[in-house]
Amino acid sequence: MSDVLIKLATILEARKTADPESSYVASLYRDGTDKILKKLGEEATEVVIAGKGGDRDEIIYETADLWFHSMVLLAHNNIEPQDILNELSRRFDLSGLDEKANRNK
Amino acid sequence: MSDVLIKLATILEARKTADPESSYVASLYRDGTDKILKKLGEEATEVVIAGKGGDRDEIIYETADLWFHSMVLLAHNNIEPQDILNELSRRFDLSGLDEKANRNK
Amino acid sequence: MSDVLIKLATILEARKTADPESSYVASLYRDGTDKILKKLGEEATEVVIAGKGGDRDEIIYETADLWFHSMVLLAHNNIEPQDILNELSRRFDLSGLDEKANRNK
Amino acid sequence: MSDVLIKLATILEARKTADPESSYVASLYRDGTDKILKKLGEEATEVVIAGKGGDRDEIIYETADLWFHSMVLLAHNNIEPQDILNELSRRFDLSGLDEKANRNK
Repeated sequence: MSDVLIKLATILEARKTADPESSYVASLYRDGTDKILKKLGEEATEVVIAGKGGDRDEIIYETADLWFHSMVLLAHNNIEPQDILNELSRRFDLSGLDEKANRNK
Repeated sequence: MSDVLIKLATILEARKTADPESSYVASLYRDGTDKILKKLGEEATEVVIAGKGGDRDEIIYETADLWFHSMVLLAHNNIEPQDILNELSRRFDLSGLDEKANRNK
Repeated sequence: MSDVLIKLATILEARKTADPESSYVASLYRDGTDKILKKLGEEATEVVIAGKGGDRDEIIYETADLWFHSMVLLAHNNIEPQDILNELSRRFDLSGLDEKANRNK
Repeated sequence: MSDVLIKLATILEARKTADPESSYVASLYRDGTDKILKKLGEEATEVVIAGKGGDRDEIIYETADLWFHSMVLLAHNNIEPQDILNELSRRFDLSGLDEKANRNK
């Protein structure tokens, strides 16, 4: 399973030097933070629409889009997916309410 | 890397029979799709705020929250994280513009 | 002040019979609920980005876009802006905490 | 119609000196921009959920919440609702495609 996220992160890193005219990801980097965040908000909205609609394939497709664009945001900020997984790991042993209390900063 | 997502998915599955009074995740399942989608939208907004703010730790923290709640949505729909990774894999060999064309349904 | 919302609602209603090839609003109606909701989510994200950025003109521009697209959603559902203002009016006499309690369904 | 927005803006302005312990709006000002933006993102998500669900009363209720919180954001930035209506007015004479072209910054 890990191979996909690692491979995707490697590709996203490599796209930093790609031509924005021929690479969608490079065009996002060029357009900058606001553009990447705008796409992330769009994709999150599409997950909400798909989730409310209840179509399984759409949920998968839109969630993949959301994860993809959140990984573009990570790459743009030189953050590895492993950093997110470490954060998730850190919360693992917490039971429900403890976890919730911990989440409320 | 994969272990974290697999372990998280297993925990989320197990929480389906947990007491909503003592498990945050179980309370999300009980409240249902709208509540889970609302949380997902909230967390996406927080990633946008963090991304615009530019603080690395906040981006990591909020992205973890976003991935976590998107995995709750997946579990609620009996979708495995592997399904998302398979969808991402499917797009891997695509270069920038092809990938974009492919993304436009 | 009211004239603007009334005039806008009238225009949006009239666009229901316009050619989607020459009217942006008519193209939104044709594409349907998901498209309109997607645009609304996009514009909300842009308000969040603008609000975090703090540029006054951007906040005005993006909020206008958000209100505009929320009015397209209303028109698509045959809801008048007056219905929203009536709902806001209904909450007016409420002081802070009462209002909050009222908002929590 | 205008009276509602004017009255609401006046109330929101007055809440700037209210006690955050007894006024929800004052508590939003105290918590600051991020909190207000988070609420705006939440309410936008709820409009998307309601719009997808198609329940008329819910759409009205959630749109009122969205407009309300966007007006809190405006007040927090010393922007009048009239500024938004002026911006909408400015776009009024534009036909569909011109308007769209104009919207694309």
